[in-house]
Amino acid sequence: MNRTVLAADLGGTNLRMAVIGEDGKILYRQKHETPKTEKTDEIINAFTELSQQCISAVKNNGEIVAIAAAVPATINAEDGIISKAPNIPALDGFRFSAAVSSELNLPVILENDANSAAVGEQWLGAAKGFKNSICVTLGTGVGGGIIIFDRILRGIDGTAGEIGHICVEPLGAPCGCGSRGCLEQYSSATAMVRLARELENQYPKSILQNKTRCTALDIFEAGKIGDDLALEVFRQMGFYLGVALAGLVNVLNPEVIVIGGGAAAGWELFIAHVQEQIRKRAFHEPAERVKLVRAELDDDAGILGVAHLAFEKLI
Amino acid sequence: MNRTVLAADLGGTNLRMAVIGEDGKILYRQKHETPKTEKTDEIINAFTELSQQCISAVKNNGEIVAIAAAVPATINAEDGIISKAPNIPALDGFRFSAAVSSELNLPVILENDANSAAVGEQWLGAAKGFKNSICVTLGTGVGGGIIIFDRILRGIDGTAGEIGHICVEPLGAPCGCGSRGCLEQYSSATAMVRLARELENQYPKSILQNKTRCTALDIFEAGKIGDDLALEVFRQMGFYLGVALAGLVNVLNPEVIVIGGGAAAGWELFIAHVQEQIRKRAFHEPAERVKLVRAELDDDAGILGVAHLAFEKLI
Repeated sequence: MNRTVLAADLGGTNLRMAVIGEDGKILYRQKHETPKTEKTDEIINAFTELSQQCISAVKNNGEIVAIAAAVPATINAEDGIISKAPNIPALDGFRFSAAVSSELNLPVILENDANSAAVGEQWLGAAKGFKNSICVTLGTGVGGGIIIFDRILRGIDGTAGEIGHICVEPLGAPCGCGSRGCLEQYSSATAMVRLARELENQYPKSILQNKTRCTALDIFEAGKIGDDLALEVFRQMGFYLGVALAGLVNVLNPEVIVIGGGAAAGWELFIAHVQEQIRKRAFHEPAERVKLVRAELDDDAGILGVAHLAFEKLI
Repeated sequence: MNRTVLAADLGGTNLRMAVIGEDGKILYRQKHETPKTEKTDEIINAFTELSQQCISAVKNNGEIVAIAAAVPATINAEDGIISKAPNIPALDGFRFSAAVSSELNLPVILENDANSAAVGEQWLGAAKGFKNSICVTLGTGVGGGIIIFDRILRGIDGTAGEIGHICVEPLGAPCGCGSRGCLEQYSSATAMVRLARELENQYPKSILQNKTRCTALDIFEAGKIGDDLALEVFRQMGFYLGVALAGLVNVLNPEVIVIGGGAAAGWELFIAHVQEQIRKRAFHEPAERVKLVRAELDDDAGILGVAHLAFEKLI
């Protein structure tokens, strides 16, 4: 019988689950809203209930050997503990693996979601075949996962990989983290909307002028038809992303940088600016070496990555 | 008989050698100028001659089991090849370990000098007892070595660790590397002199006004007696060092950051500014975790570190 893993992406908004084979094939999937609650029990109950549904649904289709969960949190991977989950504070300090394991009677693997996505892209996506990769997710914020010679860079407390909070403009825009001028304030989808608002007076002919609530998607659509304000937003977003990545190229000398997340949709409009800054700012040898590629697995990167970690650990 | 390693620091200016015991004790040392030449042979001859002097001098004092060389270069540690040595271009592409090994009939370990210094400080210096450290050297330039769970972070081509070329001011001072606003342009000894020159018009009472050729040491001496221009130079130097290190704290989550090199002499005048930026800019947990400490081994960090690598590899 084939061995499978039940992998979960426990996000602040949705709880997504999939039964995944050793080859990465997704055999079954389910989705549920993450309960908005301060009670840990309610979240864990929702998690175990959806797990049981998935387990029942595939019961004639291979043996589930582990639960694997990707969470938007600082975690202690070894002990399966969630240290800090800013978007699901009910889980702060929770011994997740022990609790879920005792409910479902299966070993549980826990990993940070950005790290899981980096593993997923290296296993089956845009970084396949490489051993040293950086995965950057441009969404509401800017997330990061770093893999060095096939091992996740976790740091001593599991907080490493926070690429979105590299400073790219020392006296720049204030950031939710308490700092100023973080990459997240220039290259996230949220930042693009702010940049468009700050710049619109200089571009009176832009079609974005008429939008009452402009989104990153609006900016992308405007950029595709050559709108000058939209193109300037993408130039700045790409410039700062390039500044941060050039620093990482000098410090980490990676083989590949995978760029994903919603704002990566504008790839053709910003990637040349990223490449230009890396070429100008990073040392020649590592700049020549590093490939910039677009993420391939989208929302499935996390569940695939954490499933892979489970297969690696248990088999 | 005690086993020892003959460790060398092959710099652009000086070639320093020491016979080192397994406990890190330096049993003998020698120094010679590095030949200013484009001929590889002349450098290797100087290296092997000084080695033979050292070997003769300690011949009744333990058995030398390896040669260990720290070089200011990108290297391939596995094959013992110097890829690129900007200050000793005669060695570019040279199969150093094979050449020296055949002359001296001993195994040869090769490592980058900044990485060696980081290993040395973790073995016997300011980072003793830690497994995750960053070592920053503030000299003519800004060098860096990073150790993650007791392994040197080399990257895929051996070029990793270039902390001095993290961008801290995107449109800032041009850097020798071709970029602008690198940390090296704000926090090296060289940068301090430039900053003093740029700022002196604003500080007409500064004693540095009378210096025809102001050095980093002059700025340090002036700062110690409260000179306002010198203090402002140290403030800016510490601010930018803090901006870069805060980013590394977020990305690497290290246990300790060791700061050394000539400009570290001004520790009391800049470290509070570094700490302030890390506190303001890095995430709470890794910022609380990381210790900032002053290097303890000075010029010996490199030879001690590379000797330790040799003992680890061969014994």
